[in-house]
Amino acid sequence: MPSEEQQKKSPPPSSSLLLIPTFPPPESESDESWVWTQIKAEAHRDADSEPALASYLYSTVLSHPSLDRSLSFHLANKLCSSTLLSTLLYDLFLRSFSTHPTVLSAAVADLLAARHRDPACVSFSHCLLNYKGFLAVQAHRVAHVLWTQSRRPLALALHSRIADVFSVDIHPAARIGKGILLDHATGVVVGETAVIGNNVSILHHVTLGGTGKMGGDRHPKIGDGVLIGAGATILGNIRIGEGAKIGAGSVVLIDVPPRTTAVGNPARLVGGKEKPSRHEDVPGESMDHTSFISEWSDYII
Amino acid sequence: MPSEEQQKKSPPPSSSLLLIPTFPPPESESDESWVWTQIKAEAHRDADSEPALASYLYSTVLSHPSLDRSLSFHLANKLCSSTLLSTLLYDLFLRSFSTHPTVLSAAVADLLAARHRDPACVSFSHCLLNYKGFLAVQAHRVAHVLWTQSRRPLALALHSRIADVFSVDIHPAARIGKGILLDHATGVVVGETAVIGNNVSILHHVTLGGTGKMGGDRHPKIGDGVLIGAGATILGNIRIGEGAKIGAGSVVLIDVPPRTTAVGNPARLVGGKEKPSRHEDVPGESMDHTSFISEWSDYII
Amino acid sequence: MPSEEQQKKSPPPSSSLLLIPTFPPPESESDESWVWTQIKAEAHRDADSEPALASYLYSTVLSHPSLDRSLSFHLANKLCSSTLLSTLLYDLFLRSFSTHPTVLSAAVADLLAARHRDPACVSFSHCLLNYKGFLAVQAHRVAHVLWTQSRRPLALALHSRIADVFSVDIHPAARIGKGILLDHATGVVVGETAVIGNNVSILHHVTLGGTGKMGGDRHPKIGDGVLIGAGATILGNIRIGEGAKIGAGSVVLIDVPPRTTAVGNPARLVGGKEKPSRHEDVPGESMDHTSFISEWSDYII
Amino acid sequence: MPSEEQQKKSPPPSSSLLLIPTFPPPESESDESWVWTQIKAEAHRDADSEPALASYLYSTVLSHPSLDRSLSFHLANKLCSSTLLSTLLYDLFLRSFSTHPTVLSAAVADLLAARHRDPACVSFSHCLLNYKGFLAVQAHRVAHVLWTQSRRPLALALHSRIADVFSVDIHPAARIGKGILLDHATGVVVGETAVIGNNVSILHHVTLGGTGKMGGDRHPKIGDGVLIGAGATILGNIRIGEGAKIGAGSVVLIDVPPRTTAVGNPARLVGGKEKPSRHEDVPGESMDHTSFISEWSDYII
Amino acid sequence: MPSEEQQKKSPPPSSSLLLIPTFPPPESESDESWVWTQIKAEAHRDADSEPALASYLYSTVLSHPSLDRSLSFHLANKLCSSTLLSTLLYDLFLRSFSTHPTVLSAAVADLLAARHRDPACVSFSHCLLNYKGFLAVQAHRVAHVLWTQSRRPLALALHSRIADVFSVDIHPAARIGKGILLDHATGVVVGETAVIGNNVSILHHVTLGGTGKMGGDRHPKIGDGVLIGAGATILGNIRIGEGAKIGAGSVVLIDVPPRTTAVGNPARLVGGKEKPSRHEDVPGESMDHTSFISEWSDYII
Amino acid sequence: MPSEEQQKKSPPPSSSLLLIPTFPPPESESDESWVWTQIKAEAHRDADSEPALASYLYSTVLSHPSLDRSLSFHLANKLCSSTLLSTLLYDLFLRSFSTHPTVLSAAVADLLAARHRDPACVSFSHCLLNYKGFLAVQAHRVAHVLWTQSRRPLALALHSRIADVFSVDIHPAARIGKGILLDHATGVVVGETAVIGNNVSILHHVTLGGTGKMGGDRHPKIGDGVLIGAGATILGNIRIGEGAKIGAGSVVLIDVPPRTTAVGNPARLVGGKEKPSRHEDVPGESMDHTSFISEWSDYII
Repeated sequence: MPSEEQQKKSPPPSSSLLLIPTFPPPESESDESWVWTQIKAEAHRDADSEPALASYLYSTVLSHPSLDRSLSFHLANKLCSSTLLSTLLYDLFLRSFSTHPTVLSAAVADLLAARHRDPACVSFSHCLLNYKGFLAVQAHRVAHVLWTQSRRPLALALHSRIADVFSVDIHPAARIGKGILLDHATGVVVGETAVIGNNVSILHHVTLGGTGKMGGDRHPKIGDGVLIGAGATILGNIRIGEGAKIGAGSVVLIDVPPRTTAVGNPARLVGGKEKPSRHEDVPGESMDHTSFISEWSDYII
Repeated sequence: MPSEEQQKKSPPPSSSLLLIPTFPPPESESDESWVWTQIKAEAHRDADSEPALASYLYSTVLSHPSLDRSLSFHLANKLCSSTLLSTLLYDLFLRSFSTHPTVLSAAVADLLAARHRDPACVSFSHCLLNYKGFLAVQAHRVAHVLWTQSRRPLALALHSRIADVFSVDIHPAARIGKGILLDHATGVVVGETAVIGNNVSILHHVTLGGTGKMGGDRHPKIGDGVLIGAGATILGNIRIGEGAKIGAGSVVLIDVPPRTTAVGNPARLVGGKEKPSRHEDVPGESMDHTSFISEWSDYII
Repeated sequence: MPSEEQQKKSPPPSSSLLLIPTFPPPESESDESWVWTQIKAEAHRDADSEPALASYLYSTVLSHPSLDRSLSFHLANKLCSSTLLSTLLYDLFLRSFSTHPTVLSAAVADLLAARHRDPACVSFSHCLLNYKGFLAVQAHRVAHVLWTQSRRPLALALHSRIADVFSVDIHPAARIGKGILLDHATGVVVGETAVIGNNVSILHHVTLGGTGKMGGDRHPKIGDGVLIGAGATILGNIRIGEGAKIGAGSVVLIDVPPRTTAVGNPARLVGGKEKPSRHEDVPGESMDHTSFISEWSDYII
Repeated sequence: MPSEEQQKKSPPPSSSLLLIPTFPPPESESDESWVWTQIKAEAHRDADSEPALASYLYSTVLSHPSLDRSLSFHLANKLCSSTLLSTLLYDLFLRSFSTHPTVLSAAVADLLAARHRDPACVSFSHCLLNYKGFLAVQAHRVAHVLWTQSRRPLALALHSRIADVFSVDIHPAARIGKGILLDHATGVVVGETAVIGNNVSILHHVTLGGTGKMGGDRHPKIGDGVLIGAGATILGNIRIGEGAKIGAGSVVLIDVPPRTTAVGNPARLVGGKEKPSRHEDVPGESMDHTSFISEWSDYII
Repeated sequence: MPSEEQQKKSPPPSSSLLLIPTFPPPESESDESWVWTQIKAEAHRDADSEPALASYLYSTVLSHPSLDRSLSFHLANKLCSSTLLSTLLYDLFLRSFSTHPTVLSAAVADLLAARHRDPACVSFSHCLLNYKGFLAVQAHRVAHVLWTQSRRPLALALHSRIADVFSVDIHPAARIGKGILLDHATGVVVGETAVIGNNVSILHHVTLGGTGKMGGDRHPKIGDGVLIGAGATILGNIRIGEGAKIGAGSVVLIDVPPRTTAVGNPARLVGGKEKPSRHEDVPGESMDHTSFISEWSDYII
Repeated sequence: MPSEEQQKKSPPPSSSLLLIPTFPPPESESDESWVWTQIKAEAHRDADSEPALASYLYSTVLSHPSLDRSLSFHLANKLCSSTLLSTLLYDLFLRSFSTHPTVLSAAVADLLAARHRDPACVSFSHCLLNYKGFLAVQAHRVAHVLWTQSRRPLALALHSRIADVFSVDIHPAARIGKGILLDHATGVVVGETAVIGNNVSILHHVTLGGTGKMGGDRHPKIGDGVLIGAGATILGNIRIGEGAKIGAGSVVLIDVPPRTTAVGNPARLVGGKEKPSRHEDVPGESMDHTSFISEWSDYII
């Protein structure tokens, strides 16, 4: 998998807190072409082996000439309702992908991320068709494009459909990098002024929330390569440094330095506030949820 | 905004534990008329600026002569299924709003609450159209009317649709006041004998749960003006005093006195069990999630 | 209720850690026949008393000659989409129930469990029609059958629909026993190599998750009769012994011995690591969530 | 059947050409009540004997408190489309029936006519549910109300749906009496300035057409009690006298005197132009299609 | 095409008026198997060459193990409505085909007839998927089975859907043979007591109608091998002898002897009433519409 | 397409029988732009005056930037089914309009023709939205494009949907000019080798049919400017000369010279076979149906 190597070549810089993601990410056409070829091959194989699924695979993947059309069709059919017709959404997605090519290249980076990091992700087409986190993020990116174009009512209507259908609630103003994995995804909430870097992995039920009824910049900033465990709640305009790890179920109200681990409710740094332990890997990519357990367990049980 | 002043005139009494909400709330026709005028104006503005959304805005808002018809239409289209047709639900909502006018005035109070407390709520129509917490609460109120009329199978069928569509699970027997904000709302669970007062704000993933397989009064009672943070789990027939605050991710198994803050798993009172700190504001309205952080952080990190 | 006695006759063996559920469970035809008769009687009563619901009850229950047809119809209509037609799903469910009769007998055991354990479950038909946890588990069992038949793309497509519609995300490879209650169910996540025994009760927002990006056996094993409270997160290939109880909101990273209670984040055993308290009841059946509270509260507040 | 006698009491006056129907017809509440009672009884009987149809009968008939609601529901579901929602049409029909009670009493007269004249019409509910001619006429009456209210775009949109769904094309401006039977109905075309009297029976493929591209009064006027056979084409602003009969397949371009019979292409009067044969019965009610055959056959074969 | 020869072996007996069709027709399993193999091969070829159609071909044909399932699926999706669900109709068709195997063998005979007689019928799958006459007849046969089982309300509901969707109106009591071609089919009307023999071809807009409001046997009887031209109207309990031909646009009110031709309005026998011309071919199979033209033209122009 | 060259060689001479229509017609962009501007203005006016219709008008007309998108959207929603999704059809129509601009300019010519010739056509938007004949012809033109591209299975599937939805059955191989008015349209049947010139007006129930089971060129050729009355049946490879008129209900089996009138069953030329009367106007445009009546009536009654 060429993209794997490519990703290893450019890890998130470890020496600084790079929080503004480079969205939209640079184009990477060869990845898109390669992934689309893979997806078509997988869908052909599955349609052949499973006639009951062939109709679905043809309508959603195999009848389309390109990834952007397949994805637009799939999202339009998932998100349409009796008052927001699929043809309208299909048009909307197609045009957004066409005028903002980096939205599609970010989708490709997300597909590679899911395949690379999630052992349950058996194929690219599985992610494209079935991962609600993947689909929610792609639809969000289009809502974000609309938001930045000052088409806010439409962005919010799309946001509402994503929240209803996928139970994933990302405010259209939130900025999200590429190479994102929302694993399981149900219940993820990301607030209006939140920022998520590249190569971040976020489990289900994670909240990047605000702190009150004042407007302004009030949501977390998540650095590149961060891993946030299931059910973690991160509140306020705080910074989670690149390569940091947030334990499952943690409630984080304070900044977390790069490459450290925060756990518990309220969250504390593993190794202590003064000299927290630092890890060398990039948890958002390695997906190591639990290496801190022995240290932590010793400490508190 | 007249309602703001009105709300300030009648804060929840701070000296007593007023837990039974005054449901159904008193009528407030002028608010309804004013809010509906606002909603129409907003929808007109948005339909003009965004042709792709105009059809949706006309069908859902602008073609209706009144808020109850618009809301009935919207809920019917959201909650219908291939076996529960939209026309049936539309009839059901219309009649409930017509025979129980306080259900609609509570909806108006909720619209005002969302607009007042949530900085991301940019307009009344945004709340009416897109807030799954708002829509789930309005549909719940109708289910509750059915429940009190001993039309329980229908109440439970409606409850089931709300839980499927919005991932908000409020038992139809639960009593809920007015001026309610369910922010983000995904994953909220409210049990059969729970009671929620007026002007309460509840974040997503909050549970007001029971304690076992025995029937009877077994769920929490939430006082007026309470704020419950994301992911908090409150279990058993306990009382959360008016104006209290529950921190995100807390697991609350004991009574919480008025205007105090409980945090942690298991939840402890900020300031200590004996002399907990008391705050002056009404957190359900001020939405101050995090002012206790410094005190709490000092205490435990 | 005959099944109640029957269940009491065969409690989970308390002396050993029996983690591999006896799936598929033995046939129990008389239960099925008795429950189906009950469901029809309930649906007739409700259709008579509530004309607005009669159409739904006839289409979903009363027009069907048997439980498997009613359940297949109901699941097909719940899970269908514009690209996965209801007739296809109906066929799929019908054939799976027909060729794997233990899938249906497990459904019957689940119906009995819900009625027995959940005081809010007022009738069998209420559970059959409205419990998203019940419906998600039945659909999962069919997805699991497909998975074991190496029809993985179809199993994953079904899994995806279950996750979208019910916000319940059970990997089709996960093995689940009978007599299961997923109460409220929203947000439950069960990973690929997880195993759940018989007579287990699991509340909403519970995660049985993995530990990283390595494949292999990496998810929890839940013994018979276990009760897992709302929002608990259990991570890694650890064992929760039969009859154990996991407190709401706990984050469990270590084995939990049989008939003990683990609470907190990170979870500790009530009574201490060395000599944890042991209870005599089967929490998965007694649904006693909170008896440990006084002990726990004394300990930590 | 009381209505039968009633109809006999007021036969169409035989001595004059009464072409302007007394639309809207006078109210006849007792008929409506009696017919609705019959329909409910029939639907109950059929739901009991045929579980597969019970859901349909409950949703369409038995869950409704009155004929106008049942008919509004049924028409709304028949005529709705992805861009004209059923709830909108339901509202529209309900309001029209409510504000124009004679529209509903005309529907009752049509039900009585179908039952009286068509030996294949086994019950009132059969006509209400299944006769596309009956349903097309009722929907037309609502379109006509809209037309007379100068709501022409809506009238024409409704007209278009009727033409698509039932293949019955009646211009909304056409005036139609009561006691109308459109038997089989497919392909009936009635132009803008056509007028149809009371107690008229029209078979399928009948055209009441115009004569060219000039506007103005250009379509046929059909007197009370006329019978028009299958496939007859009547063109231009001509008068078909009350009680006249038009043979199947005739092409009529000239006035036809009362109680005479016109047949053939082009149509001639049976008995000759000068002294046409006159019949005593009212063919629109007796439905005698063929008594002229022997005379005609002798004449031309 | 083997069936062609087979059909020639058993021409309709020319010496007697055999009007009661041998319905249900004898089984012909080998034909069914051969035709189904053809259909699958055609659908595979078309799915390969036309990706846009592949989804439709898989869902409707290629995912099904047998012709009866494919046809049941296709009819259910064509005829379903918001109040008559596709799963209900699918079940109904499947069971009828299963319990009445001659219904399916008649469908096979119709497929062979269309392929044999209609030069525009380029493949069996084209007929199965696209011929509204073919589909209407198959659905009618199931309605007829229901009628003979005294399930009349369901038969009439199905009849109503056929009339709406295909504009083909065949009373469920009408008896129809096998090897039937309804070409184009729009507007065909067949009354309650009509009988249609084997190997009959009927063009669009043809009426087999009654004569008035009396019940009883009042519709035409059509012998084997008859051809009825477009727009012909045949009224009353008259007999059209086997192998007869009815010219387009004719209005037939009298018996037509075997192997003669009737044309005109009113219809006369070609060659004269006394000694009508007789033809040797079977027009229902040869589809010779116009060989009589020269004779007729000479006669009347 | 051989006919293309042929068409260029022989522009319609007004003095001879020109049967090959000049399809595809030359581009006429200014007409398109002007008509689209009109349609938008009409739709705006109607949306303002009729809120109940505004949603429909916005979704179908006002949200689209161009006529081809509006028409593609409208046709896709009219013709879609549960197995042929609207997004697929939308794509198909859009691409056909884009790659074959003359298809759209022919649509514009048809709009102008309807507005010009039909006094009941009150606006362009009325024709675009509501005329089933107009919509059927536009969809046919796309099916014809597919047919000429050898995408026959898709062309036939589209043909089948047009026949179901509009009861208009035009074989995709039939060649049709521009400036066509199918008035009322129900029941029109046009065979495979039929050709229809420019500026032709055809009423409902008209058949351009074949003569038997032989393939090859077997359907009528209709010259420019022809008017065909309701219910006329024209059979065989015969020629209807330019500017000819066919009376309603006629059965035409012989050539009809230019600018003459044929009426009756079987059709004869008005004025006699040898020296038929000739008219000066173009009946397809003047829509004069009945000027021959006096002459004809004198002749035969």
